[in-house]
Amino acid sequence: MKITIVGAGAMARGIAIRALAGGHEVTITAKDTGKAVALADELRAGDTGGGRTAVAADDSAVDGADIVVLAVPFGAAEQLAARYGTRLSGKVLVDISNPVDAAFDALAVAPGTSAAERIGEAAAPGTRVVKAFNTTFATTLVAGQVDGTPLDVFIAGDDEAARNQVADLVSSGGLTPVDVGALRHARELEGFQLLHMALQLRAGGHGWASTIKIVAP
Amino acid sequence: MKITIVGAGAMARGIAIRALAGGHEVTITAKDTGKAVALADELRAGDTGGGRTAVAADDSAVDGADIVVLAVPFGAAEQLAARYGTRLSGKVLVDISNPVDAAFDALAVAPGTSAAERIGEAAAPGTRVVKAFNTTFATTLVAGQVDGTPLDVFIAGDDEAARNQVADLVSSGGLTPVDVGALRHARELEGFQLLHMALQLRAGGHGWASTIKIVAP
Repeated sequence: MKITIVGAGAMARGIAIRALAGGHEVTITAKDTGKAVALADELRAGDTGGGRTAVAADDSAVDGADIVVLAVPFGAAEQLAARYGTRLSGKVLVDISNPVDAAFDALAVAPGTSAAERIGEAAAPGTRVVKAFNTTFATTLVAGQVDGTPLDVFIAGDDEAARNQVADLVSSGGLTPVDVGALRHARELEGFQLLHMALQLRAGGHGWASTIKIVAP
Repeated sequence: MKITIVGAGAMARGIAIRALAGGHEVTITAKDTGKAVALADELRAGDTGGGRTAVAADDSAVDGADIVVLAVPFGAAEQLAARYGTRLSGKVLVDISNPVDAAFDALAVAPGTSAAERIGEAAAPGTRVVKAFNTTFATTLVAGQVDGTPLDVFIAGDDEAARNQVADLVSSGGLTPVDVGALRHARELEGFQLLHMALQLRAGGHGWASTIKIVAP
């Protein structure tokens, strides 16, 4: 698949590494094109999965994509969803954001909604918004596993085919997709990740190296 | 510690088994005293942890307890919290409930609150309400682990000493306490468990034998 990742930070890097491991074509685009080029160069040098990495300097980055991943904070993601407009119609738009306050003590969206739903409202009709990768810290995506177990990637979205496409991206990169149904279930994914992030600040925290997992026999 | 467990169902049994493994004194009380007696008999026969099991037939069951666990559904738990009144003042009251609809598709409490907070409102002032054990299915509590890893027990409550007491109960039973802070964080615990329960209904579900775990290196 053709995956466009918007952003050039740690989460963009982690998701790109998994996508390349799955053999996909990755395009990086970012506000700071220099950072996008640097990330693409690093990815190209490190890739052993047979994927391809390109850089795009403008909004046309999303035109050819099967999946567009907004690897930016919530506020920026909401603005981008609106700005891309009908360019995204019919495409899968992945929101990875965690709308939390500075102390990781409360959600920054109102009860009864979620960042993913807000982004869905900002996007043009026909954009197939999927929540994914919000519980996987950047460093854990690089290896794809924690303590020998593949990461769970929780997937919520109203379009089943879109959820399945993201699940294929996740599986191909060696991770475990966990489909939790409708987009409104992003509320519960964002809520639990708030707790997971807060645990990093406490004594006995996990240094952003832990992951949320459904462990089964 | 003296642990009174209200209820004689599968969750009462599971939590009692862990408490006895930790060497605590367990009192079972239930609306159906016959069921309480049967559970206590079974626990006494199976206990190898050196704990003690008793049965109480009326509300005095809570009087001598350090920790009272409401191992009943949310509606009943809310009613019991009100009925016990000032008997619970100063005590630790553990809410384990998951307020979900019949299809496991939505929470049965309003956005911006939680079963635990509702129980806190129903309880007399000075009752130290703690959310715990809502993400651990009954069958997993019997063994205390899934796939060789001890269960995580997420703990929320406004009274730090109360959270620590519940953490001690959890640790002594061989489980891993995870303190997530204030009682309002029960919202996120109940939300994520909704997803965990829903996963049991799907193709590839885990037969109520899975657990939510923070996996760290």
